This record gives sequence, C-alpha cells and structure tokens, in this order.
Amino acid sequence: MQDTLTGKRVLITQATEFMGPTLCEVFAEQGAEVVRSDVLLSEPGAAQAVVERAGDIDVLVANLSILAPSTPAAAVDETEWREVFAALVDPLPRLVRAAVPGMSGRGGGKILVIGSASALRGMKRTSTYSAARGAQLAYVQAVGVELAPRKIQVNAIAQNFVDNPTYFPAEVQANPRFQERLAREVPLGRLVGAREDALFAAYLCSSAADCFVGQVFPVCGGWVTR
Amino acid sequence: MQDTLTGKRVLITQATEFMGPTLCEVFAEQGAEVVRSDVLLSEPGAAQAVVERAGDIDVLVANLSILAPSTPAAAVDETEWREVFAALVDPLPRLVRAAVPGMSGRGGGKILVIGSASALRGMKRTSTYSAARGAQLAYVQAVGVELAPRKIQVNAIAQNFVDNPTYFPAEVQANPRFQERLAREVPLGRLVGAREDALFAAYLCSSAADCFVGQVFPVCGGWVTR
Amino acid sequence: MQDTLTGKRVLITQATEFMGPTLCEVFAEQGAEVVRSDVLLSEPGAAQAVVERAGDIDVLVANLSILAPSTPAAAVDETEWREVFAALVDPLPRLVRAAVPGMSGRGGGKILVIGSASALRGMKRTSTYSAARGAQLAYVQAVGVELAPRKIQVNAIAQNFVDNPTYFPAEVQANPRFQERLAREVPLGRLVGAREDALFAAYLCSSAADCFVGQVFPVCGGWVTR
Amino acid sequence: MQDTLTGKRVLITQATEFMGPTLCEVFAEQGAEVVRSDVLLSEPGAAQAVVERAGDIDVLVANLSILAPSTPAAAVDETEWREVFAALVDPLPRLVRAAVPGMSGRGGGKILVIGSASALRGMKRTSTYSAARGAQLAYVQAVGVELAPRKIQVNAIAQNFVDNPTYFPAEVQANPRFQERLAREVPLGRLVGAREDALFAAYLCSSAADCFVGQVFPVCGGWVTR
Repeated sequence: MQDTLTGKRVLITQATEFMGPTLCEVFAEQGAEVVRSDVLLSEPGAAQAVVERAGDIDVLVANLSILAPSTPAAAVDETEWREVFAALVDPLPRLVRAAVPGMSGRGGGKILVIGSASALRGMKRTSTYSAARGAQLAYVQAVGVELAPRKIQVNAIAQNFVDNPTYFPAEVQANPRFQERLAREVPLGRLVGAREDALFAAYLCSSAADCFVGQVFPVCGGWVTR
Repeated sequence: MQDTLTGKRVLITQATEFMGPTLCEVFAEQGAEVVRSDVLLSEPGAAQAVVERAGDIDVLVANLSILAPSTPAAAVDETEWREVFAALVDPLPRLVRAAVPGMSGRGGGKILVIGSASALRGMKRTSTYSAARGAQLAYVQAVGVELAPRKIQVNAIAQNFVDNPTYFPAEVQANPRFQERLAREVPLGRLVGAREDALFAAYLCSSAADCFVGQVFPVCGGWVTR
Repeated sequence: MQDTLTGKRVLITQATEFMGPTLCEVFAEQGAEVVRSDVLLSEPGAAQAVVERAGDIDVLVANLSILAPSTPAAAVDETEWREVFAALVDPLPRLVRAAVPGMSGRGGGKILVIGSASALRGMKRTSTYSAARGAQLAYVQAVGVELAPRKIQVNAIAQNFVDNPTYFPAEVQANPRFQERLAREVPLGRLVGAREDALFAAYLCSSAADCFVGQVFPVCGGWVTR
Repeated sequence: MQDTLTGKRVLITQATEFMGPTLCEVFAEQGAEVVRSDVLLSEPGAAQAVVERAGDIDVLVANLSILAPSTPAAAVDETEWREVFAALVDPLPRLVRAAVPGMSGRGGGKILVIGSASALRGMKRTSTYSAARGAQLAYVQAVGVELAPRKIQVNAIAQNFVDNPTYFPAEVQANPRFQERLAREVPLGRLVGAREDALFAAYLCSSAADCFVGQVFPVCGGWVTR
C-alpha cells in the first residue's frame, strides 16, 4: 500500500496520545500532509480553534483519548463522568461544526473517529468509558448518514487490543496475566500492531473508501466481529 | 401473561413521559407495586433523591426522555448537546449509584433502561439524540456484565416506532407521510403498541428473565433486528 | 407469568431432543395445547407429514438439533456437512411451505426457530454447525420480513450455554474445566436454565409478542449481546 | 493505493461472475499474480480440482454466486434450495479443505469470502438466498477464529448495492424505480462502485490486513452498518 493519501491534507487531533503518533507517521508515509494538533479538546472552544488553525483540510481524524477509569459502576462520581465525556464525546459536535462547512464548500471530505470496541461488548469496571465510546459510535452512524449526500464520509474504527502507549503501555504488555488474557480472549492471539491499525485508518481516509458512510469497523483481533 | 411482577416493588422514572404512563399501568396490572416518579432527572442531585424517596425497590426502570432535536449535525450547539445528555445519559450512573447498594444488600434486583434503536441505525438530523442513546446502550452492556455476579440484571430495550405521546404524538401519526414512512421502513407495517412494549419490559423485569445480563433488545417492528 | 398460551395450538418438533422436553412442559403449563412430534426432519418428506398430521396450529416451534461435530475445518467431509445441514437447515423451508398456508388462512400465526448463538460469534472446531445455524438466523430475518404483512411472526432464539441434554449433558457440566470456561466466558456465571429459555420462547409465541418480526434474540447469559 | 498485493499469488473463483471480473482486474493492478478460475463449484469434486490446478496460492478469494431466486417463502421448492446451497455454501468447506494444508505449510495465507449483506438484514422473497449467505458469514466467523493461530486469516465482505453484472445488471440500474429505491434505502445514494469493492477486497487480502480474523465487513453504502 503506497501513496494512499497523496494530495490529502489531514488534521489529526491529540497527536501525542492514543493512536496519534502512529497515525501521524503512517499518514505521512502514505503521502498525506499531516496537520498535527497536540491540544486537549475538553474545553468548549478548543475544537474550533484547532480546526481554524489547521486551515483547509480534506480529512479530520478525531483521535480522542483519556485514561479509562476502572471505578466500579456504583462508585462512579460526577467528576469522572464529566471528565471522560468532556474528553471523548463533547468534542465531536464541535469538530463537526468547525470542519464540515469547509469540507462541504470544497466538495467533500472525510471524518474518521478512532473509537473503541468497548462500546460493542461489555466489560467490568469500564462503565464510564464504555458509555462515552458508545456515544461516539452512535454519533458516527447518525452523522454518517446525514453527511453522505454532501460527499463527506464519516466512519469510525472501534478498536481494542491495539498496541498503543495510552491503553496498553509496556508495563501492561509485560504482565504475564495480560498475555494470558490476550491468548484467551483475542482470537488473533496478539495485540493488533499500531501500524496495522493506522494503515487501516489511512485506507478509510483515502479516496478508495468513498463508499463507506456511517459505518463502524471493529479492529480488535476478533474480540468482537461486528 | 399474568402476575409476572407480583411481589415486586418497581420504581419507574419520568412516569408522565415517554413510556412512563403505559409502563405504570401495565406493571401494576402485572402485580407490581409501582413507585412512580414524575421528577426530571437532569439535575445532579435528582436521581439520588428519587431513589431514596422510593425506599426499597426490586426493579428500577430508567425511563428517560427528552424531545429529540432535529438540528443538522453542523449546527448543533453546546446547549442542545448538554441538555440532551443531561436528560438521557448523566442520570444513569447516579441511578446506579443510588439503587445498587440496596439491591445488592437484598440479594439482587433488576435495572431496565428504556433506550432507543436510533443508537443502532443512523438517521439524519438526530446526531445529538442518537449519541446520547448510544451512550445508554453501551453503558448497559458494561454495567450488565459487571453487576451480573451480584444478581442484579441490567438490560435495555432499544425501541423505535413504538406508540407513545412523547415521540409519536397523535399529530405525527395522523400525517399521511408518516404512515407512508411506516409502511416503507418498518417491516411490522404499524407502530408497536405501547402495551406490547410495556409487556415486554414487564417480562424483562420479572423473575423469568434472570438469565439476561447486559443485553440490548430491539423493539421497533423489525426496523433493526440486532 | 401465567396462561400466556391459553387457546394456542403449538407444534413442537424433535420434541425429545435439545429444548424439546422443556418446551413441551413449559408450553403446556402456559396453557398451550402442545402437539409434540418426535420425528427427525432430515428426510425431504418428513416436515410436511409432521405438519399435516398436526392439523391446525397457531404456533410452530422449529426445534431442530443434531450433535455438533468438532472436526477441524480442514477435515470436514461431505457427509458431516450434508448431515448437519439436512438436520438443521433443509427442514426450514419445508416447514414454512407446510405451515404457512394454514396460518395465513386462519388470519396469522407464529413460527419460532430455536437457533444458536454459535452463528453470532466464532468458535473453533464448530464450522459446520455454525454455518448451519447461521443459515437458520438469516432465513428467519428474511422470512420474518416477508410474512409480517400476513400476520405471521417469524423469529429466532440464538442460544448458547443453555442447560439441555443434547448440548450440555450432565457429564459435560460435571467437568471442572467446563465450569471454569463458564465462569470465564459467560457473564451470567452459570448456564441459562432450560425453563428460563423455554419461558422466553413461550413469551415470544404469545399474543403479547405480535410486534416482533424477523428478529434474533440471543439467550446465552451475555456470551453475545446482540 | 499501489502494489498492495505484489508477490501474492491469488486464486479467484467463478471469475466471470459476480465480482470476479473486477476482482481479477484490480488484484492484477495491485501487483498480484491472479489465478482465475471460471469453473462453477457446485459439483462436489470441483473445488478441490480448482485449488490443485492453481498450485501454491497465498490468497483464496471465494467469489461464489448464483442468481437470487425471488420465490415467496412458502413456495420455495427442494430444487431451488439445493441449487442455491450447492452454489454458495457447499463449496466453502471443500475450498478450505483443499487450500488450508498448503497455506499452513507455507506459513500462512488468506481466505476472503465475497458474501452478502442480505444475511444481515431481512428482505422479502429472498429467503433461500439469504439463508445461504447467512451460512457463509457464520462459517467465516468460526473458521476465522480456528485458523488464526496458523496465520491464515479468513474474513468476509457482506455486500449489497455494489455494481456488478450478476446482481445489478444494466437493465435493473436503468429502471427508475430501482433508482428511487437506491435513493431511499441506501444512505450513500448510489451503488458502490465495483472497483471500490474490489479495492477493499485487495486491502483485506494484503499483508496490511493480517490483523483481521473471522470478521464480516459490510460493503453496502450504509444499508447496514454492522
């Protein structure tokens, strides 16, 4: 796979976190002009400022992350709930509001949300995080259908068990119990590589993928398949 | 179906809205002692107050609603987003925090979220509402798995095209274009009756349904099937 | 739950296998007149003969089973493939052909297929069985949509980890490794009881459930949720 | 996207039908050595003969098709059922039996089934076809999990509304009522292009996609999204 994104200007948010570093690297290799933003988007005005500063973009990769709390469901407090939704959910309509008029004016564009498969299959002690990730996927489905006629394709990756420093840091990977869990729960038998995930993201952001709208793609080594 | 809920004390929230009136009627017919609450749960303290006032409950039906805005995705503002999430999403962890310790102490219980199939299939101009409903379903999946060992079963109905005064008022139903849409998009060919939906909710809240955990049940006349 | 099926004449196939015994017991308790058939339906003429012999029926429960082979995918032979499809898949169109005209003439009816969640989530060494069960579910979705206007509701249960003598005989349940697997893979933490499953089947076959068409209901303790 | 398949030897079955012509063209453009087979695979010995004649292959694309009957469910006869399953379903275990030992011996491989979204969403008068396509998808899920440890990735595309001469010939596309249906039911608002579909298939068959196992990818312009 080469030059998939030549001629595309791509804004990647929270570029130092989650899939950010590998996305920037792989998208640049694929020929994209990458506009990287390191800003956290939790503050109401942040998303619009980031998009304005980026100038004209063909593709927006909403790479949003926050550490997943492991609070028992009955102990989740207002602060946790608010912080996680502020980081993962609230930026989405702001990014869309900021980016869509320009894309629309230039004849189309693409928005890819790097989401989580935790919204597709329940896990213990992830209620806040899963709920926020669930909001992302349902949002993508609705906006994807709505913006399709304007040739703006909105899709999401729903990932889990993908190698990245935010959710699977080296110390987690070094834990034998984690490796056992991987062998037991993930049909692939290993973490998905960060580059594998980023290459799929690049594919979905390329012109070859104009046919996908409002779709959620699991990338999780078979942990969920639909 | 008779006496499905005899001996069960059931709290139904927002009892004057959405499925509230029919849920109260049908659950009482099925033998439940219904504790109805008419309070809006958007305010942070409201959920806890409602649960405390209700006393010991076996079942909590989280019937949460707000009118679905039809704003184009790129025009959604902070106020809309915040109000919809405050009404539909933020009350869930508060209800769980308030209700679970008592249920757990009494050996189990049930929580049913009356959710929406708009989180399972994209529609235009419903981005805010769909996102909030998506958060609900993913939350239920996670909490359902977590609370299953404590014999608290948490599930959700994901409904659409169910007769209710909040989302399908008489004037909508009287519109011939709505009837055409129903015939075209809903395999059932009619709205699901409010009582059909409430009877299914009663079933899911009965002891017969102890085997369901973290599950999402579409009730939408075949508009989505999984 | 009482008298859900009073006045209904229900044909239950392969009544000595799989969910057959418990379905017969529970459906009778719920007031149904149960017509039990013990015939294997693999032979082309069998389904029609069974339906004809049953006379007028309101409900058909297609309870089809065959032991699941555990052959590695690359070693599956023609005989295994043919036998499993002959037992699980080929009877469906024959049952529909035989039962639908009568139901249609009497103003409606219900068909419930007791299917398997193995069609919704991959497992090793179950390729033949999973494929056959997948054919069942997709068939139900299509026929459910088609027959809805004639007031014949066709749905399926997609079960796994339900207590029954065919797939989880006592010796399997007594195996500590099976119990470990149950604890690890099934959020419910136990097998679904045969009666729980049969009561849900009864619910789906009752008039209360006229609103479900072409739908697949997982019953598997949370092993899959959609 | 360039040279995705350089160095890969790819067998494409039924190469004159369904997606065959475009798959051959696009896979060759992407650098694959394409082994095209025009043989119908309904006969029991055909699959093995085709695989043997192909020699060593890295990738097998199971492109299987037969015209979809539009018989009402209650009128489907033995011949129709048998012919459709013989064409779409029965070849799969034979192809796997024939191809897997060689792939396994050479350290891995890929199998992609070109399936149908008709197995994911019910449509009228497609019961035979949908059932057969449902068998394919469930088969892929099971075999995908089983063969993952041998580095053979098995996945499926579940397509609908993709431009191809078998299912959407020119006369169908020229029909204004078909165009209306497309506008109404398919969020993309047009057929997915044959090349778009084939490029996605090429992606899934490339080394970049080693991380996908037992997964079903809808390609249908948003008609279903999961």
